[in-house]
Amino acid sequence: MSNGTSIPDQGAARTVVSVDAMGGDRGPAAVVAGLVASARRDPNIDFILHGDETVLRPMVDRHGEVAARVQIRHAPRVVTMSDKPSQVMRHGDGTSMWSAIESVKQGEAKVAVSCGNTGALMAVAMIRLRKLPGVNRPAIACLWPSRNPGGFNVMLDVGADIKAEPEDLLQYATMGAAYARNGLDLARPRVGLLNVGTEEHKGRAELKIAHDRMTAAQDAAGFEFVGFVEGGDIPSSRVDVIVTDGFTGNIALKTGEGTAKLVSELLREAFSASLLSRFAALLALGSLKRLQKRIDPRRVNGGVFLGLNGTVVKSHGSADETGVSAAIRLAAQLARSGFNDRLAARLASAEAAGQDAPEQESGEQK
Amino acid sequence: MSNGTSIPDQGAARTVVSVDAMGGDRGPAAVVAGLVASARRDPNIDFILHGDETVLRPMVDRHGEVAARVQIRHAPRVVTMSDKPSQVMRHGDGTSMWSAIESVKQGEAKVAVSCGNTGALMAVAMIRLRKLPGVNRPAIACLWPSRNPGGFNVMLDVGADIKAEPEDLLQYATMGAAYARNGLDLARPRVGLLNVGTEEHKGRAELKIAHDRMTAAQDAAGFEFVGFVEGGDIPSSRVDVIVTDGFTGNIALKTGEGTAKLVSELLREAFSASLLSRFAALLALGSLKRLQKRIDPRRVNGGVFLGLNGTVVKSHGSADETGVSAAIRLAAQLARSGFNDRLAARLASAEAAGQDAPEQESGEQK
Repeated sequence: MSNGTSIPDQGAARTVVSVDAMGGDRGPAAVVAGLVASARRDPNIDFILHGDETVLRPMVDRHGEVAARVQIRHAPRVVTMSDKPSQVMRHGDGTSMWSAIESVKQGEAKVAVSCGNTGALMAVAMIRLRKLPGVNRPAIACLWPSRNPGGFNVMLDVGADIKAEPEDLLQYATMGAAYARNGLDLARPRVGLLNVGTEEHKGRAELKIAHDRMTAAQDAAGFEFVGFVEGGDIPSSRVDVIVTDGFTGNIALKTGEGTAKLVSELLREAFSASLLSRFAALLALGSLKRLQKRIDPRRVNGGVFLGLNGTVVKSHGSADETGVSAAIRLAAQLARSGFNDRLAARLASAEAAGQDAPEQESGEQK
Repeated sequence: MSNGTSIPDQGAARTVVSVDAMGGDRGPAAVVAGLVASARRDPNIDFILHGDETVLRPMVDRHGEVAARVQIRHAPRVVTMSDKPSQVMRHGDGTSMWSAIESVKQGEAKVAVSCGNTGALMAVAMIRLRKLPGVNRPAIACLWPSRNPGGFNVMLDVGADIKAEPEDLLQYATMGAAYARNGLDLARPRVGLLNVGTEEHKGRAELKIAHDRMTAAQDAAGFEFVGFVEGGDIPSSRVDVIVTDGFTGNIALKTGEGTAKLVSELLREAFSASLLSRFAALLALGSLKRLQKRIDPRRVNGGVFLGLNGTVVKSHGSADETGVSAAIRLAAQLARSGFNDRLAARLASAEAAGQDAPEQESGEQK
């Protein structure tokens, strides 16, 4: 995993993260700023940065001590937000996105991070990395601020595919539980299936089938199935992993973000309404900042693609330095935990049997 | 419309609201408290209250001046939250819910309000009131706090039916626009179709068909179609009416409510974290209360059933006095505006033609 870095770190294992510098809404400057912030916080990450070298070189070289840990990989083309996934899949060679995925494919990096077009990124990742054996539909998982002790729940799929069959939903449950075990350190995550009511007779026919299959599969797949959950349960402590199709999950994710943003804006307005409230805001500054941090979507930035031969983290297109840095931190954490190998093993064992696989279970604990 | 009230009000038109006293999570006490609060604020409402007379009579008689405006209609049975809609539809006679709808059917009341089982209420309303001519699927519309000048957007369907065909979505647009014209006083509401992206090639096939039909129908139906909107746009000022199927709408509604609740709880915790922040909260009390009021789901309590021969307002099952009172206020407002007759006329004209109906348009302005 050496890439010729000049800062050896007392023999600590180094993690290489492949970063797509282009294609985000704020351009390469935000990506490089996030990379530099991550590099400073975590001396054990090295980077391969993909994009236009003439643009990237001066940006990176400004940060001498970090520059030595960044390898720039020139890619002349950029995938834009309006490019169609099918086009990028066929003609994406030479783009920074394609190049970033290629580094994972070639084993130079453990994980790739991109702020680019989600559909195109999933298409390129699918065609280059291929799906894990037994996976029909890969999914995008996100973290969601919650009342649970760890502060977050996992929800998937939040937008890889607009539909999901019962088998797909069961795989999402298995993959989401594996993510929660590694990312949230939960031995036996509680999985809920998103529906319009918690009674068993409610909802669409495919959800009832998925409900029955999850009930039967929970032990083999290493999760506890809590049944149907509703939209209001997503930020609750009733559940750790929320499973849904990518259409519903994407709407829920964006609705939640939009609501949190509205409340934050109204809060800011409330505190600037009068001299007295401005003074109050000053007094409560510490508490308010902690709250802001807790619900700031940039701090949990990063949808993880699950079900591929390799880990890909999709950052928000509009991510700034804070957002990019959060996505890189998540990517490095997943790479270090060997998450994807564990997920592959879990999927294989869950597929192989309706029987439990305890030797696998212990292997997955952190 | 007289019902023998003893408080004539200088000849002002009186509105009769039919209220289901039973079946809410908090029982009849919360409903009666909400009714009394509404009655005190609005002297031009009379009530028919449906439920167990031996329970209701003493609750109502405690409020002498209001009691004279409340007619109690004894109904021995109660629909519970776990009753299946199909059962209630067949055997619901004698329940307070059935009786409350029956008052609208018989023309004694202009509008019915219930905190009970949503599915059962829709089933009873469908079978007793019948659908408006040309309506395939009735819908439930809710108000959503937003950045628009009026403070709210309309979203539908939030749970009448778990699926919707393109024709249904087009009717939802027409019905939602009529609701926004009457409820939010907008001459030409902007309608958006909820999807996972705003580009035209995104989303499910039925959404693309609905997109094209709404584009073609917008003038005849009296709304401006803004195209696809995303979850983050629901609380925004980009759109006035958000159209979606009842599965997605219900998930979005509950996700938004759950997120707002989480943020409010975290805010309360933040302000009780230290002596200083508790002091700050005291100073900012006025601003915080205004904010709380703005985002309090109880204050916009009331899903309106659209597409029936009669208006029904579904209050949250867990509504307290404030929530019930908000639902009654909304019901009275809709009854007074003659909303349902206008909606019926609008649907008829939209169905009759792809041509605009300007005499109808002017009739719908407030």
